Amino acid sequence: MATVVQKFGGTSVADAEKIRRAAGRAIKAYNEGNKVVMVCSARGKQTDELIADAHELNPNPSKREMDMLLATGEQQTVSLMAMALDAMGHKAISFNGAQIGMVTDSAHSKARIQSIDAKRVKKQLDNGHIVIVAGFQGVDEKGNVTTLGRGGSDTSAVALAVAIGADVCEIYTDVDGIYSADPRKFPDAVKLEEISYDEMLELASLGAGVMHGRSIEFGKKYHVPIRVRSSLNDNPGTLITDEVPQMEGILVSGATIQKDLAKIGLLGVDNTPGTAAQIFAHLAGANVVVNDIIQVELSPDKANLSFTISHSDLEDAKKAINEIKKEVNCQSVFVREDIAEVSAVGVGMRSHSGVANAMFNALREAEVNVDAITTSEIRISCLVNEDQAERALVAVCKAFELDKPEEERTYNEA
Amino acid sequence: MATVVQKFGGTSVADAEKIRRAAGRAIKAYNEGNKVVMVCSARGKQTDELIADAHELNPNPSKREMDMLLATGEQQTVSLMAMALDAMGHKAISFNGAQIGMVTDSAHSKARIQSIDAKRVKKQLDNGHIVIVAGFQGVDEKGNVTTLGRGGSDTSAVALAVAIGADVCEIYTDVDGIYSADPRKFPDAVKLEEISYDEMLELASLGAGVMHGRSIEFGKKYHVPIRVRSSLNDNPGTLITDEVPQMEGILVSGATIQKDLAKIGLLGVDNTPGTAAQIFAHLAGANVVVNDIIQVELSPDKANLSFTISHSDLEDAKKAINEIKKEVNCQSVFVREDIAEVSAVGVGMRSHSGVANAMFNALREAEVNVDAITTSEIRISCLVNEDQAERALVAVCKAFELDKPEEERTYNEA
Repeated sequence: MATVVQKFGGTSVADAEKIRRAAGRAIKAYNEGNKVVMVCSARGKQTDELIADAHELNPNPSKREMDMLLATGEQQTVSLMAMALDAMGHKAISFNGAQIGMVTDSAHSKARIQSIDAKRVKKQLDNGHIVIVAGFQGVDEKGNVTTLGRGGSDTSAVALAVAIGADVCEIYTDVDGIYSADPRKFPDAVKLEEISYDEMLELASLGAGVMHGRSIEFGKKYHVPIRVRSSLNDNPGTLITDEVPQMEGILVSGATIQKDLAKIGLLGVDNTPGTAAQIFAHLAGANVVVNDIIQVELSPDKANLSFTISHSDLEDAKKAINEIKKEVNCQSVFVREDIAEVSAVGVGMRSHSGVANAMFNALREAEVNVDAITTSEIRISCLVNEDQAERALVAVCKAFELDKPEEERTYNEA
Repeated sequence: MATVVQKFGGTSVADAEKIRRAAGRAIKAYNEGNKVVMVCSARGKQTDELIADAHELNPNPSKREMDMLLATGEQQTVSLMAMALDAMGHKAISFNGAQIGMVTDSAHSKARIQSIDAKRVKKQLDNGHIVIVAGFQGVDEKGNVTTLGRGGSDTSAVALAVAIGADVCEIYTDVDGIYSADPRKFPDAVKLEEISYDEMLELASLGAGVMHGRSIEFGKKYHVPIRVRSSLNDNPGTLITDEVPQMEGILVSGATIQKDLAKIGLLGVDNTPGTAAQIFAHLAGANVVVNDIIQVELSPDKANLSFTISHSDLEDAKKAINEIKKEVNCQSVFVREDIAEVSAVGVGMRSHSGVANAMFNALREAEVNVDAITTSEIRISCLVNEDQAERALVAVCKAFELDKPEEERTYNEA
C-alpha cells in the first residue's frame, strides 16, 4: 500500500466546487489503494484579503501577528475539505500546523521547518482516514504560529512526505507540469516528463514560478519524488526526481528569463581579496539579495565588479554602495535598470561542451546584445537588454530545440 | 496594580474603526495603571459566513471540523487587535485557545473548560504587554480545537479572569448595562447599578440575552465581579456581583418575557413516583430541553403533567411523548403553541411575602390570562398567551416600579 501526499494550492481550493473536485481526486487515489494525505493552501484570495485587513490597521504589522492572522486561511480550507470528504462519504480529519507538531524556527514569515511529529498523521491514515493538513504554517518551540513564506505549502507537503515516508508528493496546480520554457513566452514549449532536482532548483531560482526552491531542496535531500500536475485533468504531469544516467543525454532541459533586474557596476575598485567580501557583506546587511556577480581584473591593483539584483532592491543597494564606495576606492558607480537574464539549464552540460557557444551564436543571430555571461555547472545565463528578453528566450529555445520532445532533438545526438 | 479582563463581542470588533476603538479602551485602562487582558470574539458576521461556507459543502458537518473552522474567526480578530495596538504605540501579543492552554472536554460545539494554563498570559502582562486572547475556543486533551457554544466568549473571559486572578471582568456590548426590563419592550426600564449572580442567572436563563448563564456561574463560583458596559461610552454599566445585604431591600430587580415557547400537557397519567422521571428521561434522550414543569394531582392514582419547551423543540418533543404515552397510561395529550412566560426576579423575594399576589393582581388588572404559575426562590413566572406577553410585561414592570431607580420605589419600603 503506497502513501501519497497531494498538495492543492489556493486556486485549486478557491470555491466549493473546486474543493469538491480536489476531494474527489483524493478519494480516487484512496480507492486505488493508497493512503492519502492532502496539504492545502488558503482559498483563492483569502490571504490577500487578510493582508488588506491587516494593513488597514497597521501599515507595518509585526510578523508574529501577521503569521497568526494568515495561518487562519489554511485552517479554514482544511476543515472545509474534511467536511466535503465527509459529505462524499469518506472518513477525513483535518489538522493545523500545531496539531501535527510542525515545529519551525522563530523566523516569522519565513520560518524553516525543524521537525514534524508524524505519529498523529500515521495513526489516522492507519484508521482509514484521508488526512488533511494545513500547509504554509507551523509553530515554534514556544507555540507561536509561524509561516514558511512564499511557496510554503509546497515545502509543507514535501516535508510531510518525508516525515511519513510517502512514496510520492503530488503538487496540483493550474498547469500541466514543468515545461521546457514558459508557454506564455514560447508557445511551442514542450512538457517535460522528468526533470532532476538540480535542474528544477536552477529553474525555480531563475523565476520559473511553478515551485519554490526550498521544497525541491527537501525533495532532493530526502529523495522524495515530486510530481507536478494539473488539478484539472488526469495527465501525469512532470516528475521531479533524482538524476538518472539517461538525463545526461539531454543537453538543455529548459530555458527561462528573469526580468525586473538591475545591474550595478563598481569601476576600478581595489583588486584585493577582501574587497568583494566587504562589499557583499555590506549589501547583505542592507537585506539586498545579490543574484550574479561578475568581476574583471583591470590591473594587478584594480578591478571592475558588477552584480545583478531585483529591481525592487535597487534603492537599498544604491544607498549601501554609496556608503561603502570610498572604503574600497571605487572610482565610479554605474547602474543599469533595464536588464534581464536569459538562461539555459540542463544536467547534460556537465558532460558536454559547446553549449555556451551554441547559445551565443543563437543570440547573435537574433541580434540580441549580450551584456555579460555567468555560468554554473548545469546553467548558462546571459544578461541582455530587457526589451530584447523575449526575443532572446525564443532564440535560445529554438537553438536547443525546446519545442520538440527530447527524443527528437538532433542536438542531443551530436 | 489591578488586573482587568475586557471582553469585546463581535459587534464591538466588526471593522477596523471598531477594532481601534476597542484597542483605545484597553490602552486607557492600561494607562490608568491596570494590567489588561482583552478577550475577543469573531468579527461581525464572520462566523455566519463561515457557517454558510460549511453548509455549501456539507449540510450536516462534523462538529469537530466545524469547531476547527469557526475558531479561525477569533484568531483573526486577536491578531488584528494586536496590530492595531502596535500601531497605536502599545506592546501587545495575541494568543489563541491552544496557546494559553485553554483545555476543555471533547464535547465539540459546546465544550466545557477544564483548565487554563495562565503562566504565559501572566508573563506577558508582567512584561507590559496588553494580552489579547481568542474567546469561544479551546483545545481538548488531544489538541483538537473545540468551541464553547453560545455565549462562549463571555465564558472564556470570566474563566480567564479567574485563572489570572483578575479584579474585574468587563463585558463590552452594545447596551449600557443590565436593565430592569428589555427597553425595547418597556421603554421606561432603568439601568441597574448592581445585580447579584443569582438574579442574573435567572434573567439569563429566561432569555434576557445580554450574557450567557455559564459565564455568570463561573463568576459566582469564583467571586469574580463582572461589569456589563457599553463599548460606545464611558458609563459604568452594571456590576454583577455577590449578593450583599442591601440587595434584599429590593423586591424585584428585573422582569422579563420569554417567547417562542410551547406547552405540552399529559392528562391523567399514573400518579406514581417514577412516572415523571420516566417521561423526562425520555425527553432528555430526545435532546429536548424542558423549561418549567407543572404537575397537578387529580386523584391518588392520576395526575395531569404539563411542561414548557422551546418552540423549536416541539416536533421532537411530540414524537418523544407519543413513544412513551402508553407506558405512563396517559389518557390524552394536548399542545399549546402560543405560550410565553413573564417573570419577575429579585433576591428580595427570599425574605418578603406578597410578591406573587402583587404580580397576579397586576396581570388581572391588565386583563392577561394566566395559564400556569411556577416559582423559584427568587423568581415568579406566569405562563400567558403569547399575544398578551408584551402587555403582561409592562403590567409587571409597572407593578414593581421597574421604571424608577431602586431607591425611589415605594414598594420596596413596604
